[in-house]
Amino acid sequence: MPKVQLLLTGNELMTGDILDSNSAMIAQDLGLEIYRKVTVADDINLLTTEINHIAKHADILIINGGLGPTIDDLTAQALAQAMQVSLIQNQEALAQLMAWCDSRGVKLNKPNLKQTMLPKGCSIITNRKGSAVGFHVAHFNCDIYCTPGVPHELKTMLAEQIKPAIAKKWRNNQMTNVTRLQVFGLGESNLQNMIDEKFPDWPQNIDLGFRAGLPLLEIKLSCKNETGLKQKPIWEKKLINLLEDHFIDQITEKPKTLAEHVLIKLQQYNLKITTAESCTGGLIASMLTSVSGSSKCFEAGFVTYSNDTKSSLIAVPKQTIKQYGAVSKEVVMAMALGAIEKSGANLAIAVSGIAGPNGGSVEKPVGTVWLAWGSKKHLQTQCLLLPFKRHYFQKYVAAIALDLIRRVLIKSNKRPNYINERSFAPEKTTKQV
Amino acid sequence: MPKVQLLLTGNELMTGDILDSNSAMIAQDLGLEIYRKVTVADDINLLTTEINHIAKHADILIINGGLGPTIDDLTAQALAQAMQVSLIQNQEALAQLMAWCDSRGVKLNKPNLKQTMLPKGCSIITNRKGSAVGFHVAHFNCDIYCTPGVPHELKTMLAEQIKPAIAKKWRNNQMTNVTRLQVFGLGESNLQNMIDEKFPDWPQNIDLGFRAGLPLLEIKLSCKNETGLKQKPIWEKKLINLLEDHFIDQITEKPKTLAEHVLIKLQQYNLKITTAESCTGGLIASMLTSVSGSSKCFEAGFVTYSNDTKSSLIAVPKQTIKQYGAVSKEVVMAMALGAIEKSGANLAIAVSGIAGPNGGSVEKPVGTVWLAWGSKKHLQTQCLLLPFKRHYFQKYVAAIALDLIRRVLIKSNKRPNYINERSFAPEKTTKQV
Repeated sequence: MPKVQLLLTGNELMTGDILDSNSAMIAQDLGLEIYRKVTVADDINLLTTEINHIAKHADILIINGGLGPTIDDLTAQALAQAMQVSLIQNQEALAQLMAWCDSRGVKLNKPNLKQTMLPKGCSIITNRKGSAVGFHVAHFNCDIYCTPGVPHELKTMLAEQIKPAIAKKWRNNQMTNVTRLQVFGLGESNLQNMIDEKFPDWPQNIDLGFRAGLPLLEIKLSCKNETGLKQKPIWEKKLINLLEDHFIDQITEKPKTLAEHVLIKLQQYNLKITTAESCTGGLIASMLTSVSGSSKCFEAGFVTYSNDTKSSLIAVPKQTIKQYGAVSKEVVMAMALGAIEKSGANLAIAVSGIAGPNGGSVEKPVGTVWLAWGSKKHLQTQCLLLPFKRHYFQKYVAAIALDLIRRVLIKSNKRPNYINERSFAPEKTTKQV
Repeated sequence: MPKVQLLLTGNELMTGDILDSNSAMIAQDLGLEIYRKVTVADDINLLTTEINHIAKHADILIINGGLGPTIDDLTAQALAQAMQVSLIQNQEALAQLMAWCDSRGVKLNKPNLKQTMLPKGCSIITNRKGSAVGFHVAHFNCDIYCTPGVPHELKTMLAEQIKPAIAKKWRNNQMTNVTRLQVFGLGESNLQNMIDEKFPDWPQNIDLGFRAGLPLLEIKLSCKNETGLKQKPIWEKKLINLLEDHFIDQITEKPKTLAEHVLIKLQQYNLKITTAESCTGGLIASMLTSVSGSSKCFEAGFVTYSNDTKSSLIAVPKQTIKQYGAVSKEVVMAMALGAIEKSGANLAIAVSGIAGPNGGSVEKPVGTVWLAWGSKKHLQTQCLLLPFKRHYFQKYVAAIALDLIRRVLIKSNKRPNYINERSFAPEKTTKQV
């Protein structure tokens, strides 16, 4: 495998005014592992130093940006200086630039001409999508490709010219074999612990990586070599077994959201779901409806934030609220049943909890939440204590609610880790009956 | 001014699996110029080499990422190796980590303990938001700050500890006098245009910066020197006048969300609001209820995603839907009035639209949305065409809905730019009456 580095140039990348999405594109479109990336401001000496340094260490250097017509575009000049060659007008670049201007009915102007002054001896990389031609040189045995900063120009150049050129030279480059697993309900350190304990013999040829997300976490298995590639199927299976139903899916292209997984299953069984939300205030409904096509399985949701509206909208008996409090098993059950009744759905999720920072009590501290989920006939309930900040609490409760329904739909009989760890039994408050 | 470099670590940054938004945050939140940034894969030798190299050239190095509990988190180890000191268990880090676990009701596990093994002699930077403590060392006269990769943890650390520490040491670095204005409903290039046209004489001593966000945009006025500082109040005022009611607030500490602005006003007038959402599917309700204390002004919301539930839950006459279609002025009016009736609120927001990618027609293409907002007596309506991707469409509609209510509450008589630009008159569909 070639050793690949990136050099990105541009003040706007340094000030944070724009986010760099090009390097992700380069890594993904080339399918090559990039082990180091340097970003520098538009400064001729900084650029020259970096080029010389990187060219001595890498097999391939992709320089992105700095090909434009303005004075702060310095890539060609820096490269010439690094290689100690002169900048000369490149006839092929000039011809391409003139053709480009012609095709758009514009005149070649003086700043544009700067874009044809390139390091002596370079070869041109055609830019079909813009005015800045790219170019290639070999310097200290490193292939240097200079590419434009405009994303769609870069993309075309990568696909049509740079990727084929690299593939030709590095035939054996087996564009790494990676598996990504989606997991819910296990933290990163927790997972690491489980893996350390269960698999002290985890093979050295398969790298494990973790990417924590809220709500879904990703585990990445990357094979380092042919041996790893052969071992992977077995270890992948072992790992998935270990994860039990915390394992959600293998990611092929774009990772699916929890709501998507739930909706796919609902549609498969031709079921409709409704939501009755207090502490999550519509978040569960909005997660479901953010998915295109969700209307097939979701027709209505209720945000019943006050006690009165729990009674008036989804028929929770006032007496139940009075007797057990709004955050109680009895109330979430009544909410779920009321929502099913009013909406005609098959399944419901109901949540009522104390998101905080205020509103907690000794018996029911901030972070207490009751959930009810399932069908009218098979309604399950659970109380958890999730003492997090409001925003995180709401996100986490909504994700757990969706996961619990997902588990119903996959007919899981395993106990999720978050119930093991966060299960909570608030003292029965015998309020004024 | 100190010379500042960044070192980012993480395989996920190299593979393009995630975009780096942290370095933008660091540049902007510290208000310092960063002239070079290096990103490397999780490799102990790469990291060590970079640290030694950078420490010799920069005054300040901020290392981001690699503080987690898993084996691919290598920052502490690399720093110790670079400085040729040992890794030892840091008692302060241990105490903070234990307190963190306590507060969340979880047990300290073995991988977590790795997070307390830090280079000998470092000083701790408290992480109020997560388990990975940060730390500081001086190496070759360079101040090295090691920070966590999780954005909100990083943000708090920067604001509360790193920025003050740097400011203390580099007194003359006039962490510029900055004003930040919050704006809704004007795009970045639009704004730039307006300012260029209205203020060709904008003073050179006040830099203008823009930070586009969804939904709120931020304008930053930074004074370059004493003269700018003197001129600022006048120009700030001129700018705010130009913005009309697109100007929302001056940001002092943490920017408020649109929902917060709405809730502050509602509470001031002792008003209650309700939501009747079709295409936004609960998003508006969840934006409101994400604010602590929202229960004072928000008791109930309705997600009526199907036609039937619009009728059964908030009494939209079936005949109205049949006659005008679900995405119509008549239906959103009926939704708003029905929601007010059922919830007892004073004000309502109702939205019905075509989020796409499917469901559009010639008369009502994807992106069409009808909004109704106000009180029973003063209900306003508007149709807009927002032909964006589903996710963005939903966010934008929800934000516009909140902004329209905000404008009612501040008694605005100005026409927002989004109505000027996006107003849409769908042809009346005379359906089977």
